[in-house]
Amino acid sequence: MRSRFVSASASGRTNPGNFFEDFRLGQRIRHATPRTVTVGDVALYNGLFGARFAVQSSDVFAQKIGYPRSPLDDLLVFHVVFGKTVADISLNAIANLGYADCRFLKPVFPGATFTAISEVIGLKENSNRKTGIVYVRSRGFDETGDAVLDFARWVMVRKRDETAPAPAETIPQLPGAVEPEQLAGACPRIDTAAYDTSLAGSPYRFGDYKVGDRIDHVDGVTVEEAEHQIATRLYQNTARIHFNLFAESTGRFGRRLIYGGHAISLARALSFNGLGNAFHVAAINGGRHVAPLFAGNTVFAWSEVLASAGIPGRKDVGALRLRTIATKDRPCTDFPLKSGDNYDPAVILDLDYWVLMPV
Amino acid sequence: MRSRFVSASASGRTNPGNFFEDFRLGQRIRHATPRTVTVGDVALYNGLFGARFAVQSSDVFAQKIGYPRSPLDDLLVFHVVFGKTVADISLNAIANLGYADCRFLKPVFPGATFTAISEVIGLKENSNRKTGIVYVRSRGFDETGDAVLDFARWVMVRKRDETAPAPAETIPQLPGAVEPEQLAGACPRIDTAAYDTSLAGSPYRFGDYKVGDRIDHVDGVTVEEAEHQIATRLYQNTARIHFNLFAESTGRFGRRLIYGGHAISLARALSFNGLGNAFHVAAINGGRHVAPLFAGNTVFAWSEVLASAGIPGRKDVGALRLRTIATKDRPCTDFPLKSGDNYDPAVILDLDYWVLMPV
Amino acid sequence: MRSRFVSASASGRTNPGNFFEDFRLGQRIRHATPRTVTVGDVALYNGLFGARFAVQSSDVFAQKIGYPRSPLDDLLVFHVVFGKTVADISLNAIANLGYADCRFLKPVFPGATFTAISEVIGLKENSNRKTGIVYVRSRGFDETGDAVLDFARWVMVRKRDETAPAPAETIPQLPGAVEPEQLAGACPRIDTAAYDTSLAGSPYRFGDYKVGDRIDHVDGVTVEEAEHQIATRLYQNTARIHFNLFAESTGRFGRRLIYGGHAISLARALSFNGLGNAFHVAAINGGRHVAPLFAGNTVFAWSEVLASAGIPGRKDVGALRLRTIATKDRPCTDFPLKSGDNYDPAVILDLDYWVLMPV
Repeated sequence: MRSRFVSASASGRTNPGNFFEDFRLGQRIRHATPRTVTVGDVALYNGLFGARFAVQSSDVFAQKIGYPRSPLDDLLVFHVVFGKTVADISLNAIANLGYADCRFLKPVFPGATFTAISEVIGLKENSNRKTGIVYVRSRGFDETGDAVLDFARWVMVRKRDETAPAPAETIPQLPGAVEPEQLAGACPRIDTAAYDTSLAGSPYRFGDYKVGDRIDHVDGVTVEEAEHQIATRLYQNTARIHFNLFAESTGRFGRRLIYGGHAISLARALSFNGLGNAFHVAAINGGRHVAPLFAGNTVFAWSEVLASAGIPGRKDVGALRLRTIATKDRPCTDFPLKSGDNYDPAVILDLDYWVLMPV
Repeated sequence: MRSRFVSASASGRTNPGNFFEDFRLGQRIRHATPRTVTVGDVALYNGLFGARFAVQSSDVFAQKIGYPRSPLDDLLVFHVVFGKTVADISLNAIANLGYADCRFLKPVFPGATFTAISEVIGLKENSNRKTGIVYVRSRGFDETGDAVLDFARWVMVRKRDETAPAPAETIPQLPGAVEPEQLAGACPRIDTAAYDTSLAGSPYRFGDYKVGDRIDHVDGVTVEEAEHQIATRLYQNTARIHFNLFAESTGRFGRRLIYGGHAISLARALSFNGLGNAFHVAAINGGRHVAPLFAGNTVFAWSEVLASAGIPGRKDVGALRLRTIATKDRPCTDFPLKSGDNYDPAVILDLDYWVLMPV
Repeated sequence: MRSRFVSASASGRTNPGNFFEDFRLGQRIRHATPRTVTVGDVALYNGLFGARFAVQSSDVFAQKIGYPRSPLDDLLVFHVVFGKTVADISLNAIANLGYADCRFLKPVFPGATFTAISEVIGLKENSNRKTGIVYVRSRGFDETGDAVLDFARWVMVRKRDETAPAPAETIPQLPGAVEPEQLAGACPRIDTAAYDTSLAGSPYRFGDYKVGDRIDHVDGVTVEEAEHQIATRLYQNTARIHFNLFAESTGRFGRRLIYGGHAISLARALSFNGLGNAFHVAAINGGRHVAPLFAGNTVFAWSEVLASAGIPGRKDVGALRLRTIATKDRPCTDFPLKSGDNYDPAVILDLDYWVLMPV
């Protein structure tokens, strides 16, 4: 069973990745490689993205409001866990089709060691019989065995053998959005009186945002090849398309494609300008990498408040559901999104997620 | 009062920066974002600049001479504190006109958390009434509340509204150089006998340098876009001109401008070759970014000893006042500086500062 | 004696490096700069190379098999120690001719402080009298004074003065390969039952590899200027050819040459795909940088098992002697090596080393 997932390739003992017919409904896959994340990783993540949320930046600020110290950036945790799944789930993927129901479950700190397991929750062969869609639920765990992250994603994967029989079609039910009562697991109860908005860089708390608000995050940041490669390696994400210019120069884009998660982290860092107290990404409801991002592009972003919600049992924090749009080589002063049914050609990312803010 | 500094921009809740008429004499500005600096930041700083001063490189070396462990590089502390001031002081600056009276006040170590406050100490509207000069004194503090860094700088800032009335003109008195008795605050008493010059990489102690000595630091280092972006983000310095190729491609230089502090750190690292025991930057008397630095340029440096001074009450260390000149794409074998009244076109930095060396 | 090695250059107090006639047989050179290696350095090394060996990646994994925590990557230790020797041994080198008898002697962990000493073990003037070959044995030590690394290398160095008399010719005897009984010093006794191959990412243990096996490591990784510069500075390796585009643009290659050790680390990281449980580089028998590597090149690698050996007194680990070949801009599916007597023009590295694997 498991051995099919680590079978030798024709050329030796290397990992050929899994093909559509290698996946079975209900199958559980323990991923390599366990990873201890340290203050070193935090510093490199900061150097690559320039995040300025005070809770993650200052141990003192974090302690004043109720954390034992600065927690790891939520997206760093996401990337590290996601990175583990690549070699088993998406090495032979043609496309990452979507995410859903991504929840951060426990605050985690430098020194934590992460592992990951995925379960196959859906399979659907495509009508061309050359590819299929694999749905997995992936979970990240810390060294105590506690789940820290849980998310579903689905990818289009090649078949090794087009004549292989298709499994019964199963498409999982996934929520359109995470429910508010599920949002606070990774956020300790905070002392909102001790939350110093002046030090945090923005006076706007939860109550200052209303559904329909749109915020241009103003700044733009140009991505370099060295930057996205260093970031993606930091997560031990081995997807070849991000690193191999020799192969990609004759590939679909003629150059290296930047890991989609890089755009998410850039947009999150840019969003500080306008959402400076949105200190915690609590859940990701869904996301679409609308267009590819390449080195040399300059990324801009804007956000819309989709919903505002209290959290049952919590009076310290409220949740904003945000839609953040990132573009390349196009400022977002006029909130570019779609023209007709199609995305504005500058849009690269359409992300739907929940953040927590102090009340 | 404070609220003027965090007012919403037209497009939402983003920081538009302050304009000349937003500043008032005596005004105190608490800056975001507090920042815990760790061994991760130290490693990244080392990877970006390649410093080789033994005190900062080896905990064991530092402990042998009297530090509890390796202190943070002085310039890393400067950049982190300076970075905090950018969003409030110089986001709308046309030019950084000068620094003065920059003093390092306390040894700081990985794990320290820094905050910063600036006070407006001078204002002068320019005769064109479109801009003005703002003088501030900025101070960095550690988590105990102790001041660790204190410096003055002045910047030319746009007015939002040209018709706004000008404040009374006040130009502060700033010293041409820091006095020797102010230089040792960030240097614990060291055991000079335990200072191993062989291990440190240079046999030359304080007494081996004389006023008028000129030293070519020989080596050159080429700067890449990824490097200066990673460094500048590490300091949470958000000045747009360093990161946004899309905007800058139609701007004054047609490309991203490298943060001036990057050139200072490069010159300091190069200066190891010739000043290997100048282990502590104690003060910066003044500095001028003579010309812009861009990615692809190769930076060289040379230094002249302007003064040599004992420090009252200290027999362990002496102070050298140095003028370090950095150039781009031009070796410094012939000590390029000025031709007539003008700087040599290769000069990018003219820095006047004090270093401490063991006697 | 020692003073010859730190003499002032003509232009000041800078290090001119040593020339052939500066070396004497039996001479011992203590190198600058001592260096504490932290989790910050580990994170940056991971970001630059993307290593995925579980022992170095996860403190928990390392502890389960018998380490106190994750050890430092062996090659990071090598580069840091090697870097110290550059300023004294090879600053005036025309060529790094070879390595031999490189042994890792003690497990080392974040927080260790390294120093290095070299001894001149051979000298041979070349017949042109303009250059000579210097053989040194270099040793790295940790803060307790224990040797952690020991290796020989030989470099061709310029003479300062062609008329200087030549020393008596002495060529040291160096082993073609390290003996198996010398391989386990840096590997604590491990609990092989606790070694989780699924978590480590490969089911293949020591017994699954046979002499003559050839493994294509499949993946390719493109190198950027910022990456190799950051890495090489991290090791405080100051060899000018890696950093100075201005000088190198009129030099032998017309551009910066990448530190040879960068190719070794890239090849080691690539080798995870096929050798996932080869968790420890125990010794390097020899290595040849066959051709230069430049930014923009994509590196591939393949390995052949040259020997398989038990280690006297150890039943937990076995040793594989590997020959790993790295190429640039050429996949290794057909195991490129030589055509006739000459290397395939794509080959950049031919490395002969021992790794340990769990039995």
